[in-house]
Amino acid sequence: MGVTLLGTRVSPFGMRVRIALEEKGAKYEFSEQDLRNKGPMLLEMNPVYKKVPVLIHNGKPICESLIAVQHIDEVWNNKSPLLLSDPYQRAQSRFWADFVDNKVYFPGRKTWTKKGQELEAGKNGLIESLKLLEGELGDKPYFEGDKLGYVDVALIPFYSWCKRCMQNESVSKSLPDPQEVYGFLVELRKKLGLE
Amino acid sequence: MGVTLLGTRVSPFGMRVRIALEEKGAKYEFSEQDLRNKGPMLLEMNPVYKKVPVLIHNGKPICESLIAVQHIDEVWNNKSPLLLSDPYQRAQSRFWADFVDNKVYFPGRKTWTKKGQELEAGKNGLIESLKLLEGELGDKPYFEGDKLGYVDVALIPFYSWCKRCMQNESVSKSLPDPQEVYGFLVELRKKLGLE
Repeated sequence: MGVTLLGTRVSPFGMRVRIALEEKGAKYEFSEQDLRNKGPMLLEMNPVYKKVPVLIHNGKPICESLIAVQHIDEVWNNKSPLLLSDPYQRAQSRFWADFVDNKVYFPGRKTWTKKGQELEAGKNGLIESLKLLEGELGDKPYFEGDKLGYVDVALIPFYSWCKRCMQNESVSKSLPDPQEVYGFLVELRKKLGLE
Repeated sequence: MGVTLLGTRVSPFGMRVRIALEEKGAKYEFSEQDLRNKGPMLLEMNPVYKKVPVLIHNGKPICESLIAVQHIDEVWNNKSPLLLSDPYQRAQSRFWADFVDNKVYFPGRKTWTKKGQELEAGKNGLIESLKLLEGELGDKPYFEGDKLGYVDVALIPFYSWCKRCMQNESVSKSLPDPQEVYGFLVELRKKLGLE
């Protein structure tokens, strides 16, 4: 029954799942969702959160982007491991991917949904988190070492810290035109009355 | 170098890690932390969040309770698997454990830190989430099937839904006296000016 991804072109969470699928060379169909008018497929496949992305694998849904990325890594386990085999390193990768959700996404979100003091707080939080991540990255080409890994996949849709990641074909094929994302955010800020 | 757990007796997140260690029969030392006066060990082992629990395994820290539980499951992999081997079932377990963090813990927290409308909202959210979980549990003795599993470990410190789980020795050894937790929360509500 194959693989279908329910998402939107500009969702960074969806990009994670696309990058992981591309990295594994998995064939999949992308189904763009209209979040203002959610279709029956999305509501059926993610009744709890009604959000994208949803990875549908052999007819069964996997929700939440990092859970979907881990699923892809476990199913397509003969190629391009995203999590390393050492349990301690796996725990570290899970910690930093979770950190991206808590400490990069949320402050980052404030930089385009808030203004004034809250925008400033978001900017400062984001910069602090990225510094911490860069410290952990150190001199390694990728977060987990020599190859694109789990933390890179979690982070790269939020932060193009690393031209190396961008040069990776799985990444470049899955990211939208930056101009398209910019246009989306400008529209969103207008709609939220921030411009 | 063995296993040490930095925690507090009443932390439900710490209880998850204790239950997992007991279930695996892993020997460990529990180190009670004073969160009002954080010691150098905690600050060194969890510099990012400065929170408990921290599992220290062979001198290296693993932070965040669900990540620590997964780590324990991967290291002590010859006994009492918490996550099943099927990738789809693993993804489902991760989804529902994450749901416990988002939709049981946060509304539950409101029932003892808020009052009035917010307390009511917390109570309603909590009841709705528990109904959803009970629907998923269905007729199975445990969430993942016949044995104590990952979602049970994630949930049981928050909700004694299931006398079966309580009868499990790993669980009963790791949970504090309910009276002790009640006393702690009464004190906390006083301190927060809610009584």
